[in-house]
Amino acid sequence: MKIAVDAMGGDFGPRVVVEGAISAAREMDVEVLLVGNKDLIREEFGRYGYNGPRLSIVSALESIHMSEGLLSFRRKKRSSIQVGMQLVRDGEADAFVSAGNTAAVVFLATRVLGLIPGIERPGLSILVPTLTGMTLLIDVGANINCTANHLEQFAVMGKNFMEQVYGVKNPRIGLMSVGEEKSKGNPVTKDVYSRLSASSLNFVGNVEGNDIYSGRTDVIVSDGFTGNVALKTSEGVVGSFIRMAKREITRDLFAKIGYLLMKRNLKRVIKKMDYAEHGGAQLLGVNGACVVGHGRSNPVAVKNAIRVAKDFAASGVQAKIAEDISLLVSRKRNTAA
Amino acid sequence: MKIAVDAMGGDFGPRVVVEGAISAAREMDVEVLLVGNKDLIREEFGRYGYNGPRLSIVSALESIHMSEGLLSFRRKKRSSIQVGMQLVRDGEADAFVSAGNTAAVVFLATRVLGLIPGIERPGLSILVPTLTGMTLLIDVGANINCTANHLEQFAVMGKNFMEQVYGVKNPRIGLMSVGEEKSKGNPVTKDVYSRLSASSLNFVGNVEGNDIYSGRTDVIVSDGFTGNVALKTSEGVVGSFIRMAKREITRDLFAKIGYLLMKRNLKRVIKKMDYAEHGGAQLLGVNGACVVGHGRSNPVAVKNAIRVAKDFAASGVQAKIAEDISLLVSRKRNTAA
Repeated sequence: MKIAVDAMGGDFGPRVVVEGAISAAREMDVEVLLVGNKDLIREEFGRYGYNGPRLSIVSALESIHMSEGLLSFRRKKRSSIQVGMQLVRDGEADAFVSAGNTAAVVFLATRVLGLIPGIERPGLSILVPTLTGMTLLIDVGANINCTANHLEQFAVMGKNFMEQVYGVKNPRIGLMSVGEEKSKGNPVTKDVYSRLSASSLNFVGNVEGNDIYSGRTDVIVSDGFTGNVALKTSEGVVGSFIRMAKREITRDLFAKIGYLLMKRNLKRVIKKMDYAEHGGAQLLGVNGACVVGHGRSNPVAVKNAIRVAKDFAASGVQAKIAEDISLLVSRKRNTAA
Repeated sequence: MKIAVDAMGGDFGPRVVVEGAISAAREMDVEVLLVGNKDLIREEFGRYGYNGPRLSIVSALESIHMSEGLLSFRRKKRSSIQVGMQLVRDGEADAFVSAGNTAAVVFLATRVLGLIPGIERPGLSILVPTLTGMTLLIDVGANINCTANHLEQFAVMGKNFMEQVYGVKNPRIGLMSVGEEKSKGNPVTKDVYSRLSASSLNFVGNVEGNDIYSGRTDVIVSDGFTGNVALKTSEGVVGSFIRMAKREITRDLFAKIGYLLMKRNLKRVIKKMDYAEHGGAQLLGVNGACVVGHGRSNPVAVKNAIRVAKDFAASGVQAKIAEDISLLVSRKRNTAA
């Protein structure tokens, strides 16, 4: 399996990405193609004393910064993200990983790889840790304005992803809203509620913000605005909780000793809650496997993103999504006719 | 100061509410009017051996359950929520507190007390704890579909509330979105961004989910759908984090001892993060001070809600909101003319 990795992505650029890529090439059965500035990548190879097998460089002369917008995505034809996508499109790589500009990845994936036939918008999905396992939240920010069609398609994408990549049988689908009752929500979610109820999906109804981490569902469908706010809110809450706890603990000797005794265990939980560690977000609905890491990814997160990309590419989920979407579209056409 | 309290509200009804009301009457300079089923309230008085001064009963023959909807709000003319609102309207109480059905409180407050002139929709606001103090999040669920006018008015309400009730000078106002740049957001938030930038408010721009708990702003303006999801998400995250940590800790003897040593400190932080403890949500934009407690309020939360209602009623914030909104409306009229 060949994974193209955007060496220029993330808040820390090649330094962190190359280290993660080296770990992946050492530990997993993958071949990593680092895409970006050759000199910078080589410098990092030198630092880690590794230039071994299963690691190669593909030159990309430009890079897209975190703060750049649509104009740059279009103008920079030789960006590491565009070159990486082309590798996937041309069959030279099986998947693409970037911890860079998410909007650029979504835009260029759609443009270079194209959407799966029938898909209207790609969905950015993320696995969040729950008390019982993992829940896929889709969309977490690729689409700010979502129609009922978009949300319905996200449900189909999410279902197939959890089934094909994580072996979840008949995944339970929830719809993000502001109350469990059918009557709760906005006009779009109410429409989607009816559609999903009438579908063959294992739809469990509306879910609320506090259900994200409860493990009640395997997939939660949301518009990208709300999904993004929910995801970033949880990030902020955990961070604040930890900082408040630290402040409280350092005031008191017994608490300090207590903290030292359980530090290792607490760190494990914090790590489990930290979705950035789990490999980032999967872009669903395009013809290819793209994974977007968190900007603040560390080398372990980059390695995990490469692992997710490998499983994603191996799953053949795109073909399953294409099948289900074609059924959905033809059913709609028949109903309309 | 006279506070009318819905004795029938909350997941536990009179048992919890009366206990909280008794504490309030004992500890604060308030007179509490318990509204609801006389017999049930008297039974609780008996249990706590208190039927003292500053505590009286106002009979209400019906109550609205948590799961009831609009039809019941209209039909039950003698519900404890309706009777409580009438006490405020008629000047027999200065504020109303309910841990009951939020939608019923919003509906009946609007109907019985009426909106402040110029206000289009009331906003449900909640104070969330941050690293540096408190941030007011408005709206957290009263309005599922918000226009730019609504959000603009929430900003005005939130600003005045923080200024008048909590003495925050020139409160920093943030707008909930999916990125800090002006260009990020949906059409409504982009419109509101321009309006708030051009206003005399201390607008600090867009904020993201992870800013809610950071203390970067004093007020965060959001549509009720997103605000509700964000609030419930944080509730869920903290709960899951604690449960995961407990599971992890009980596996290991040293961690268990560590936990015992810092238990008291951790509980303090958890309590600080638990917004249900802080007294619930303030309904802004109606002619009166209404506070909605969390359904799962315990007696301390009920007492805190009574304290918040007292400060809210004493602040005279409604008059300030009315002033600012009248300026806003007349400025708009002049621009349109």
